[in-house]
Amino acid sequence: MYVNEIYAEKISERLARRDLPKSPENLYAPIDYILNLSGKRIRPLLVLLGADLFGLENMEHALPASVAIEYFHNFSLIHDDIMDKAPLRRGQQTIHQKWNDNVAILSGDALLVKAYEQLAQCPPHLIPELLRVFNRVALEVCEGQQLDMDFEELDHIRKEEYIEMIRLKTSVLIGGALEMGAVIAEASIENRAKLYNFGVHLGIAFQLQDDILDAFGSMEAFGKQIGGDIIVNKKTILHILLRDNLQEEDRSYFKNLLDLGEKEADRKIAEMKSLYMKYAIQQRADEIKQRYTQLAYSNLDAVEVVAARKVALYELADRLMHRKQ
Amino acid sequence: MYVNEIYAEKISERLARRDLPKSPENLYAPIDYILNLSGKRIRPLLVLLGADLFGLENMEHALPASVAIEYFHNFSLIHDDIMDKAPLRRGQQTIHQKWNDNVAILSGDALLVKAYEQLAQCPPHLIPELLRVFNRVALEVCEGQQLDMDFEELDHIRKEEYIEMIRLKTSVLIGGALEMGAVIAEASIENRAKLYNFGVHLGIAFQLQDDILDAFGSMEAFGKQIGGDIIVNKKTILHILLRDNLQEEDRSYFKNLLDLGEKEADRKIAEMKSLYMKYAIQQRADEIKQRYTQLAYSNLDAVEVVAARKVALYELADRLMHRKQ
Repeated sequence: MYVNEIYAEKISERLARRDLPKSPENLYAPIDYILNLSGKRIRPLLVLLGADLFGLENMEHALPASVAIEYFHNFSLIHDDIMDKAPLRRGQQTIHQKWNDNVAILSGDALLVKAYEQLAQCPPHLIPELLRVFNRVALEVCEGQQLDMDFEELDHIRKEEYIEMIRLKTSVLIGGALEMGAVIAEASIENRAKLYNFGVHLGIAFQLQDDILDAFGSMEAFGKQIGGDIIVNKKTILHILLRDNLQEEDRSYFKNLLDLGEKEADRKIAEMKSLYMKYAIQQRADEIKQRYTQLAYSNLDAVEVVAARKVALYELADRLMHRKQ
Repeated sequence: MYVNEIYAEKISERLARRDLPKSPENLYAPIDYILNLSGKRIRPLLVLLGADLFGLENMEHALPASVAIEYFHNFSLIHDDIMDKAPLRRGQQTIHQKWNDNVAILSGDALLVKAYEQLAQCPPHLIPELLRVFNRVALEVCEGQQLDMDFEELDHIRKEEYIEMIRLKTSVLIGGALEMGAVIAEASIENRAKLYNFGVHLGIAFQLQDDILDAFGSMEAFGKQIGGDIIVNKKTILHILLRDNLQEEDRSYFKNLLDLGEKEADRKIAEMKSLYMKYAIQQRADEIKQRYTQLAYSNLDAVEVVAARKVALYELADRLMHRKQ
């Protein structure tokens, strides 16, 4: 077994031993439900890999923070799904759909508190610093979600604004998970910062790739319906780059495509992708993605530990970015 | 100035210096808005009084925890108001009413994180213990809110179940605020427990009194419309005691009263109060309230510090319970 698999198993075990109260059922059953949908559990793994990078010997010391990150991530999914009126999550009904909005609000709140309960189980002398990192990240994730909702109402978003939004909404948690691992292994401030920057840039690259795959991926690689973002006019990096590069002659055609309804989904996807091709949008997006990927790797390169310790993180990053090793 | 007033001023000052970011506006403006509605700010005062009881010299050490408690309380108000579909709070529009549900969910989340940010500013060696107390209380408050919503769907609630619900929903936060003050002043475990029990029992007595005043208070003393609970068939201690004591002959009359609509509010209030009088419900409720008040006072009596240090807390409790000194 790879080290990643050993750690993934430790996390699964710890999560399975969560032992929530039975009552009030409407508070705790939804928490059990979403934690059982599992997902890839990359974020809690990053806490352990961040600690492992700096040679933490007793991984038990990092597990509570790892679970805290997974709880926080699931809390944010529960509340985001209410706000986005999403009916499905990981192929199953969302909590607000299966129960109702009130249950989803309150069980989300309780899960956020449970994340802090895990923090309280970390090695006591590290709790103040872990709490600070966790709070900073948690608040930034809220800011990112608010920006994402704000952007839905806006016609034009600049590329830089979009990247700032995804940095806050999804990437700081990747960086923060790694950073918490580094804090637990008592890494130097400089190494902590480099590892955090690796995570944030990797997170941005990953989100850009997700945008690209939504239009240009295969169903197998992507695991979701292709073109979903196009159908709902989501302001992805592709949408933003196209709008920025569009020549006068295509403006009204683009506008008309945006106005196409669900019934003409196939035509909408096909014609939007033609526009993307005409303006080499995939290449432009790829270029930005590559820039962030490179930034991520160069930050990991710069962390001052022996190269052998970095293997697991390079491996995970390669896998996330679909790069051959 | 009384000590309570000096402390109240310290809290106001600290809250006024909160200096929230300007952006995203939809995240932070609602937080500013609810904190400006102010309220009585009894909970943050209790943190300082709990610390003062055990002779804490530098009150600066207790202020962050005091602000944390006020932030938490306001977070719970924001989310409760969404769940209860309440249009008004302290005479002003609620956040979900003035903005929308999504804004209220997310700004509530951010305010909860800001409460933990305050905890991270407490004296570092006390943070692990403060975090544990705060988490325990926060989770219990969620449980209480869930029970309160569950009870709306039930026909019959036992008196004991009702008191357990108000203990969780409102009283543990009163006890927890005092306990956090005691932790900061490094009181003994026994003294901490007694002070916590004082707060919890006082909180229950206060909530029971609120139920009684809703039917039997004067507009001046109560500050709200009299009979509001009766109009909406709220399952208060009066409602529960009446149902428990009702004789066969009055059952259908009581049921019919419950079915009266908004248009017959005056008649509904008057006739329900007659039923309360027939069964001496006010006296029965008062008796329970007195029992909890006594329990509260005897716990404060038992705290092992010189009597002079307790004056401020007795004074506050007397004021809350409308007792003459």
